[in-house]
Amino acid sequence: MSHASDKLRIAVDAMGGDFAPANEVLGAVDALRETGNRFEIVLIGKEDAVRSEIAKANGGDLPLLVVPANEVIDMHDSPVVALKQKPNSSLVVGIMLHKDRKVDAFVSAGNTGAVTAASTLFLGRIPGVSRPTIAAIFPSETGPTLVVDAGAVTDCKPHFLYEFGVMGSIYSEYMFGKKNPRVGLLNVGEEETKGDELAKETYAKFVAGKSKINFIGNIEGRDILKGKADVAVCDGFLGNVLLKFAESVPTFLKVKFRDYAAEGPLKKLLMGVLRNPLRKIFKDFDYQEFGGVPLLGVNGVTIIGHGSSTPKAIKNMILRAEEMVNRRINFHIEESLRENKSEGMNG
Amino acid sequence: MSHASDKLRIAVDAMGGDFAPANEVLGAVDALRETGNRFEIVLIGKEDAVRSEIAKANGGDLPLLVVPANEVIDMHDSPVVALKQKPNSSLVVGIMLHKDRKVDAFVSAGNTGAVTAASTLFLGRIPGVSRPTIAAIFPSETGPTLVVDAGAVTDCKPHFLYEFGVMGSIYSEYMFGKKNPRVGLLNVGEEETKGDELAKETYAKFVAGKSKINFIGNIEGRDILKGKADVAVCDGFLGNVLLKFAESVPTFLKVKFRDYAAEGPLKKLLMGVLRNPLRKIFKDFDYQEFGGVPLLGVNGVTIIGHGSSTPKAIKNMILRAEEMVNRRINFHIEESLRENKSEGMNG
Repeated sequence: MSHASDKLRIAVDAMGGDFAPANEVLGAVDALRETGNRFEIVLIGKEDAVRSEIAKANGGDLPLLVVPANEVIDMHDSPVVALKQKPNSSLVVGIMLHKDRKVDAFVSAGNTGAVTAASTLFLGRIPGVSRPTIAAIFPSETGPTLVVDAGAVTDCKPHFLYEFGVMGSIYSEYMFGKKNPRVGLLNVGEEETKGDELAKETYAKFVAGKSKINFIGNIEGRDILKGKADVAVCDGFLGNVLLKFAESVPTFLKVKFRDYAAEGPLKKLLMGVLRNPLRKIFKDFDYQEFGGVPLLGVNGVTIIGHGSSTPKAIKNMILRAEEMVNRRINFHIEESLRENKSEGMNG
Repeated sequence: MSHASDKLRIAVDAMGGDFAPANEVLGAVDALRETGNRFEIVLIGKEDAVRSEIAKANGGDLPLLVVPANEVIDMHDSPVVALKQKPNSSLVVGIMLHKDRKVDAFVSAGNTGAVTAASTLFLGRIPGVSRPTIAAIFPSETGPTLVVDAGAVTDCKPHFLYEFGVMGSIYSEYMFGKKNPRVGLLNVGEEETKGDELAKETYAKFVAGKSKINFIGNIEGRDILKGKADVAVCDGFLGNVLLKFAESVPTFLKVKFRDYAAEGPLKKLLMGVLRNPLRKIFKDFDYQEFGGVPLLGVNGVTIIGHGSSTPKAIKNMILRAEEMVNRRINFHIEESLRENKSEGMNG
């Protein structure tokens, strides 16, 4: 497969999610239809199954290529083991296509750990980046807030966190159009003396690197939804727990609303009227809107989605990947972290 | 001041919160009125100010004692420094009364770090407890879920976390009436190989101590509101960020509802009708209902409240303190963790 076309080419792991390949194919078809075939999509997976879904979706006329891959890495596979044992998996085949620059981006709703590991190992890191990071998108009163890291690195060092902040700042600026994004360090209090050893050392590192980014100091858990920062920096253990907690809020409230409606016919009526406004209001917590989260810091564009990704989520992941390529996020990350490398901070 | 009465005596830091002593006095008055003076309350603080609030609240006939303390530890004071520099603060005077068993419990909406430090230093720890823990109360689909630790200890060792789980289990059983409470370790995935070094070692520690508590393994951020566990164990850094995030959810949603109402008169009307049901639904996220959080593991009963505690929150903190004394939480903690001590694990 050559890449002679002028159009961007985005690879989709067709076997990644819980509803693969159906949702993946539907999302790809929708992305092409909605953009008037603005890019090409490469679907990687079990050929017969993928082609059958394309036919079902009447996608035969669209710029959809299929690259066969007969193995599947599932949610229960241990990431690094799976990469070795399943070289013909849709994930590994897709990442290798990206490594060879046959495609410009890679999108997967598969095993997050395996996608992160494959991207890091096979694509490599941008010079100056010690560890790639997953940037989760939270709603806030002042627009989207990034939480970095949301699960790529559980054991962090201060300079990892500093780099997460720089990468998040760039993503926030070039993807969300925020000027001079405010970067805050998630901590248990605002004073610089607060927190564990990691937080204190990281604070000092941010102060030292302040000329490059707009470091606003420590922020607290309540400041995320308030929109006090555009980028909230934390280790991947905390970020992952926080992201999953936040994503569970709408479901919890829906249960509460349902219980309320069950209390009587009038209340049921009231909740019926409210269905649409509530849906609109909870939209901000809905991962489908953003589709997926970028893995920042790898030599390529990788977007990771939920296992339960809907076609809409897959479509939005593809659009996000296109945008990340066009906005040259990686070029800007390399520019910003170049000195890091010469200081020998990566590793 | 002697303690000859048969009634319990609960000390309230009258200078602790942002609206002290007004809210503290009002909360104390309400607690006594609501319970028909079931206990006595000792208000500690600037005597004139406290007595003036009592008069305003027509509380002259109630079993309210005032113990003078002329210094105040505020939110910006460094905890340990403040304890030394302000021996006549309402916080230190109150904790010393409790240490001398002049009162049976202590309630404060003051500086959380200072209340934790004073309780730990002056009351001491229950035998077998390495570190006291703040147990935050989260709502869930299956009733209240405790998150331990919610901010007492930011740098944790595996046996601290294990003890937090045991103490949380006891609190959940005796305060919420849960049988054999399910204790889960907050982690980035369910498999026992998941997480950072601390999580893996803690997992092993829980498995080793499983006979004492109902350890259900790793849980994820989304499992808290779902009610998968009665007790969610994590370090105080994560727990504190998570608690403050959760507390900010209703405010964020209120802003969303307000924005929605501003879109037009019909929407405004709809939101007006919904005000009460929404308030009822968000009640679960409202810290005022529980009033405050217990500091578990100290030789005494300490309840810590929000700086912004309302009279209702103060009242509920007092009721919670009474309940903790009556349910003999500390006796059960000592029973459960006694072996810990003989194994020399505390310190």
